[in-house]
Amino acid sequence: MTENSKRSGPILGVDIGGTKVAVGLVDRDGKILTQGRKPMVANGTAEAAFQAVTGAIDSLASSAPGGIHSIGICAPGPLDPKTGIVLNPPNLPCWRNFPLAEKITSMYRVPVKVDNDANAAALAETRWGAARGFRYVFYATIGTGIGTGIVLDGRIYHGNTGSAGEGGHVSIDYHGPLCSCGKRGCIEVLAAGPAIGSRARTKLAAGHSRSTILELAKGDVAAVTSELVGQAYVAGDPLAREILIETVEVLTPWLGNIVDLLDPDVLVMGGGVAAMLKPFFDDIKNRLPSWCVNPRASDIPLLMAHYGADAGIAGGAALCSEDLP
Amino acid sequence: MTENSKRSGPILGVDIGGTKVAVGLVDRDGKILTQGRKPMVANGTAEAAFQAVTGAIDSLASSAPGGIHSIGICAPGPLDPKTGIVLNPPNLPCWRNFPLAEKITSMYRVPVKVDNDANAAALAETRWGAARGFRYVFYATIGTGIGTGIVLDGRIYHGNTGSAGEGGHVSIDYHGPLCSCGKRGCIEVLAAGPAIGSRARTKLAAGHSRSTILELAKGDVAAVTSELVGQAYVAGDPLAREILIETVEVLTPWLGNIVDLLDPDVLVMGGGVAAMLKPFFDDIKNRLPSWCVNPRASDIPLLMAHYGADAGIAGGAALCSEDLP
Repeated sequence: MTENSKRSGPILGVDIGGTKVAVGLVDRDGKILTQGRKPMVANGTAEAAFQAVTGAIDSLASSAPGGIHSIGICAPGPLDPKTGIVLNPPNLPCWRNFPLAEKITSMYRVPVKVDNDANAAALAETRWGAARGFRYVFYATIGTGIGTGIVLDGRIYHGNTGSAGEGGHVSIDYHGPLCSCGKRGCIEVLAAGPAIGSRARTKLAAGHSRSTILELAKGDVAAVTSELVGQAYVAGDPLAREILIETVEVLTPWLGNIVDLLDPDVLVMGGGVAAMLKPFFDDIKNRLPSWCVNPRASDIPLLMAHYGADAGIAGGAALCSEDLP
Repeated sequence: MTENSKRSGPILGVDIGGTKVAVGLVDRDGKILTQGRKPMVANGTAEAAFQAVTGAIDSLASSAPGGIHSIGICAPGPLDPKTGIVLNPPNLPCWRNFPLAEKITSMYRVPVKVDNDANAAALAETRWGAARGFRYVFYATIGTGIGTGIVLDGRIYHGNTGSAGEGGHVSIDYHGPLCSCGKRGCIEVLAAGPAIGSRARTKLAAGHSRSTILELAKGDVAAVTSELVGQAYVAGDPLAREILIETVEVLTPWLGNIVDLLDPDVLVMGGGVAAMLKPFFDDIKNRLPSWCVNPRASDIPLLMAHYGADAGIAGGAALCSEDLP
């Protein structure tokens, strides 16, 4: 097998989380050919965590008998995408200044790229997904947290130190609730899953006892999550609807800030909360012009991400797609 | 005189405001060689306003006997920097879809560029001023309003429709005071000159009668402006200091948002309010990390703009400096 034939194989996308490593082989069109996941070892040694990653990679090797083109990795931030060094991730404390790209490269002898999951997913959407053909892409994944990425002219915008695109921590309420990051009023603390769950629990505790949300939680207010709010909304629950509209009411000023700074030609949203809010996308679009000075804000498409739970695998692969022939 | 010798002359920078047209000849190093200003005719016909501009340009012609290289114009927005068409400026209502660049080009037969004043001034700072040598520049001019510009790799970042970089209308308080733009809690309504004046008048009306600010306003609370607050601060007035610190307290979360989205390598501030806040720049820098997730926020220089009242002329000229040999 020559070096050339190897380089014609699929890209191996890796998504390293605090509890699992997801891996997949991805073809030139962004199609995930096969995938798997292994448990991650986050609280042991750096080497044990590394072996969890290489174990997951190796488990796919037999699926690409002709070799792989490259390995693209979504890793927990903060990290340096230029060097592929993982700096000091809160949910992977054993990797401190860990030279992930270098170690993977020397082991597998193929090109390796490393970036954070939101940047990588933004690139996957631009290359192969909902933002294909757009030049100024703003992507947000809204789930337990809010991660965002900016892709300009087909390349991730990293800024000076690789920390650009942290839109989840743009504050729209500087007197507002404290975010886990230490800032106040970040959109993450106002609109991510935990905020939706918390809003529901507060309303239920205040006496909305007839909501489907509470039934789904078997009467236990403390067991209410954003997922249950989403299920209750689908079942026609008015309180769930009210909570999702309140979420729209904070997301819109935030998107307005993004639009006024970046003037994107597309907005893409992914993640569990975005999926839950899909029925409100038109509502957000209609509200957006009143939160923008951009005179063409109403023309900007607001699209659901193409990749769902596989965004990390596709994102990792997308990092290496710039090298594709 | 050949076409070539003309192209070696200085750049003519034009700054069109609602009440005046400022013009200047600018050399290859961004030095303003000579300048003048003429009254603007904003409320007559489109043609009368155009003649005010060409009159101002012509008044400098004798200062460049060898001809001029090009004409760069700061015009009131919104406008399309690609085509040089002025769309529908609130403070120049007679120009609606006015093809400014085309008309100036056909009259003077030199390259012509048009952009808004904040973008142009951001570029002048990058080419010749405080941001020289930086790659990811965020510039803000803070005066009666707040205008901002983003320069990436030496070029103005315009976004998709030319409306990017409207940082003055990034909201940090979506429940906050109404901005003239229709949004709530924009940094412009919280920190520009009128906000500072208004904050002072409120405090004085509430009984701070011993402040120097009131003396400077000859006892008339209604006559208090941000300029008087600035003068009183210089004279050691504690109330003025308190008001400027409150301004710092809103500017910092806003700059934190900018840093977390754009990860710039320099922040440059110009305009009258920025000059007034210069003694607080270290304070802003010290507060910034608590309003950023960017781990290197404290390393970002916060610099006073090089160009003051001439920023429009230098900015206009900078628009044409990309063509310089």
